[in-house]
Amino acid sequence: MQFSPLIEQFMEALRCLPGVGPRSAQRMALHLLERDREGGRRLAQILQEALDQVGHCRRCRTLTEEPECRICRSSKRNEHMLCVVETPADMLALEQTGIYDGHYFVLLGHLSPIEGIGPEDLGLDDLLSRVQDGAIEEVILATNPTAEGETTAHYVHELLRPLGIRVTRLAHGVPLGGELEYVDGGTLSRALVGRGQFD
Amino acid sequence: MQFSPLIEQFMEALRCLPGVGPRSAQRMALHLLERDREGGRRLAQILQEALDQVGHCRRCRTLTEEPECRICRSSKRNEHMLCVVETPADMLALEQTGIYDGHYFVLLGHLSPIEGIGPEDLGLDDLLSRVQDGAIEEVILATNPTAEGETTAHYVHELLRPLGIRVTRLAHGVPLGGELEYVDGGTLSRALVGRGQFD
Repeated sequence: MQFSPLIEQFMEALRCLPGVGPRSAQRMALHLLERDREGGRRLAQILQEALDQVGHCRRCRTLTEEPECRICRSSKRNEHMLCVVETPADMLALEQTGIYDGHYFVLLGHLSPIEGIGPEDLGLDDLLSRVQDGAIEEVILATNPTAEGETTAHYVHELLRPLGIRVTRLAHGVPLGGELEYVDGGTLSRALVGRGQFD
Repeated sequence: MQFSPLIEQFMEALRCLPGVGPRSAQRMALHLLERDREGGRRLAQILQEALDQVGHCRRCRTLTEEPECRICRSSKRNEHMLCVVETPADMLALEQTGIYDGHYFVLLGHLSPIEGIGPEDLGLDDLLSRVQDGAIEEVILATNPTAEGETTAHYVHELLRPLGIRVTRLAHGVPLGGELEYVDGGTLSRALVGRGQFD
């Protein structure tokens, strides 16, 4: 036995959400139908609105329903710094540190020949012309510390090299609050090589 | 910093789903917007349809978009057995055992003075008149083995007692595949008291 066709389709449709398997989809569908139809209606409406209205910031490519995102519009940000990240979530994580006040450029992915993602998909032409415009003095490459992220960072570095501006990357090392015993060898090697004066 | 207003509202709306906190809501919203707008559109549409069309089976009260659910419509089920459960999910769990071929009655909850849920909310009038109709010979009370479930079962038992039909309940005991060491004392006591001939 299963539930009725429409309920089964509803459960199936919920599986498009990341981390939602058959059991959670069932629990979610029954919860909304039995106990929170009001919340379900709000979700259906906002989901539709978000899909219709959210696009990309024309300057930094982050997700936003406005032509330009809040950071790109702000007059309080340092115009000479540009931080290149893979996703809007990475941008948020860096913002939450509270110590960066420059601008961003969101690649919306990383180079991946296997997935067919090339330089043109990452908006690298836009990035290049933005840096060529002249105000930017430093580009921080903050792609993920994965094989694809590193490859992407190297590619962007090569692209920007002829412009002669400063290109930096995030430091690698042991994360705060962990125990050395559990830090992987690669990270530990980077932390040793990159060691600094004790102060 | 946060995301733009519409994206923040979208994340907030996703929190109506059970088990979805701020981090999962963010991951879900960004996933749909960045990588699966097609799935998102399908979800928005089906969610709306399900909320508009899914109601309750007029015989057993389970969730369905049809006037009567598949089990109530079936001519192959045993008309003399009625199993009372709290939710459509409990009904599905029993169906999946494959050994019950009778009908169901879904309370859609349990008695709870604190939450203001009384007999009238559980359709007990409908249950009573259905049993009074005459075909039913046994009612299995399969409410949850919780305080509220037990209270509800006792209440239904009292309600049906004057009719003089057989009223049964699911057996309590040690679950299969576990280790005795980890079975709680209450369950173990019930398993001892309810012990049967080794065969």
